[in-house]
Amino acid sequence: MMNQQLVLASRPTGAPSVDNFALREVPLAEPAEGQVVVRHHFLSLDPYMRGRMSDAKSYAAPQPLGEVMIGGTAGEVVASRAAGFAVGDRVVGMGGWQTHFVGEPARGMWRKVDTTRVPLSAYLGPVGMPGVTAWYGLERIIAPKAGQTVVVSSAAGAVGSVVGQLAKRRGARAVGIAGGPAKCAYVVDELGFDACVDYKAHADVRALATALKAACPAGIDGDFENVGGVILDAVLARMNPFGRIAMCGMIAGYDGVPIPLAAPQLILTSRLRVEGFIVSEHPEAWPPALAELGAAVADGTLRYREAIADGLAAAPAAFLAMLRGDQLGKHLVRLA
Amino acid sequence: MMNQQLVLASRPTGAPSVDNFALREVPLAEPAEGQVVVRHHFLSLDPYMRGRMSDAKSYAAPQPLGEVMIGGTAGEVVASRAAGFAVGDRVVGMGGWQTHFVGEPARGMWRKVDTTRVPLSAYLGPVGMPGVTAWYGLERIIAPKAGQTVVVSSAAGAVGSVVGQLAKRRGARAVGIAGGPAKCAYVVDELGFDACVDYKAHADVRALATALKAACPAGIDGDFENVGGVILDAVLARMNPFGRIAMCGMIAGYDGVPIPLAAPQLILTSRLRVEGFIVSEHPEAWPPALAELGAAVADGTLRYREAIADGLAAAPAAFLAMLRGDQLGKHLVRLA
Repeated sequence: MMNQQLVLASRPTGAPSVDNFALREVPLAEPAEGQVVVRHHFLSLDPYMRGRMSDAKSYAAPQPLGEVMIGGTAGEVVASRAAGFAVGDRVVGMGGWQTHFVGEPARGMWRKVDTTRVPLSAYLGPVGMPGVTAWYGLERIIAPKAGQTVVVSSAAGAVGSVVGQLAKRRGARAVGIAGGPAKCAYVVDELGFDACVDYKAHADVRALATALKAACPAGIDGDFENVGGVILDAVLARMNPFGRIAMCGMIAGYDGVPIPLAAPQLILTSRLRVEGFIVSEHPEAWPPALAELGAAVADGTLRYREAIADGLAAAPAAFLAMLRGDQLGKHLVRLA
Repeated sequence: MMNQQLVLASRPTGAPSVDNFALREVPLAEPAEGQVVVRHHFLSLDPYMRGRMSDAKSYAAPQPLGEVMIGGTAGEVVASRAAGFAVGDRVVGMGGWQTHFVGEPARGMWRKVDTTRVPLSAYLGPVGMPGVTAWYGLERIIAPKAGQTVVVSSAAGAVGSVVGQLAKRRGARAVGIAGGPAKCAYVVDELGFDACVDYKAHADVRALATALKAACPAGIDGDFENVGGVILDAVLARMNPFGRIAMCGMIAGYDGVPIPLAAPQLILTSRLRVEGFIVSEHPEAWPPALAELGAAVADGTLRYREAIADGLAAAPAAFLAMLRGDQLGKHLVRLA
């Protein structure tokens, strides 16, 4: 039996391409004592992976060339010589871009999950890292009061969609920023945001700020930032005194394009707090976040969509499509 | 008897000039019931006044044209029909750019001060608004641990000089940024900072960042930002993970020059917290701050210098000199 794997073959210069990845097959190893074999059902595609492809200084070490790409996965234990894991267990962890994981459970950061009321794939989305990311930024940094206005960019994405719905649950006004009328309709009609600004319909920072003013008549108290660049400039111009900006992603600059902040003095004049965070560094937040998110998915009050590609070979193209924002929702690759 | 006053005659376009101010004399009014007359000994000159001269949106209403310029003052009660204030009391408050204040004590925000061990003028500097500003940003935002490195720009100024000394008192490494060898020598030799970078000796952000790297071999954990622009860009590039930036002033942009932040994505990748603040909005911080600062000035462990101009007519030129950074220390005008 073979294990299919995708490795990083080269680093992108500018935008990444499918040629940066290489598919290979290796024999599927038997588990040694203390190891498990997990058959992956789903691979998660996330923006942070773009950062790992480059070797620029960042919070995480770059993905080594020639090794299996890092990635969250969900699957089923198919062999186990590790205490606490049995064949048939549903698990979620960091199995990488491959059809199977073989190794110690701690290396895969596996945790068992209950799929009775929450689908397995949701543990890679609203009840997984993207959901906890949304929860942490909203709850621990923005901390909106009822009636305050929260803006989130990439609002139709895996993180942004949860941010707005959590803000609504706390009695705040939720305003999304997304690209194109289809995404904006989804954000408002299906996710229940109060408004959504289509940034592609507004040519420059001034037009975007004007659209935000209309969508946020009482100003902006909290911003969950996934994009940066012109979008952040426009949001900053509309922030209320004592506003909070949770800086989660700066995807506008991921390909090396400069994304200067035009008017940082607004942080002073509006007495803002801007805070960058990486959710994996806040393990204490995961249990309360997962409790709320799991319950909300189980009872159907937290909505989400998935954009699923089939087969490991489709992962590179699906990853690039995710970065481009071709589809809305959580991007996954189905592996079994 | 006359009251000499300086009013804002016009708003600057670009850099301010002495022509933006006009001197006038009005008869000194008798105090009405509930009022005091304070004879000003010192007028404080502070960077925030530059912001009030413009009518751009900011945290404070612009200074109205034709009215006495806002400003902190220290003086002596020379007539009183207000409870709690007696002739001879030494007081500090917001008396404005004039030789005398006449009005209700609350309007001048007067508080009585003890000049037994702390000179009256110090209540406008290290034991006044500039000192509390330094204390708040360092203590409540940067909160350095012993051994961490704190950088402060305008290090030879009224606020920056206190920031570094307070950082040293907390066991941190204090590194200043100042313009010219004289200021840097003062910061290190007299104030006791560990190092000082002369930004005028480094032509661009890369050279400045290199100089900061040498002065901060373990990186920067806290930045007290008074300047912005290229200086902030250079500091940001050297910030350690989980660093804090207390944004107190952005004087590089006060004349309308754009001061974009080149790489705001560093806030995310270094998981920084950037917080703007105005010390007058944090009244709860003043008592503990003034207690520490007053004791440290009284026992001589907190050092400061004053740049004193004589007579109200000299105030506009002295104010412009303060903005240019011609002299180090706290800028005052002696009025009596």
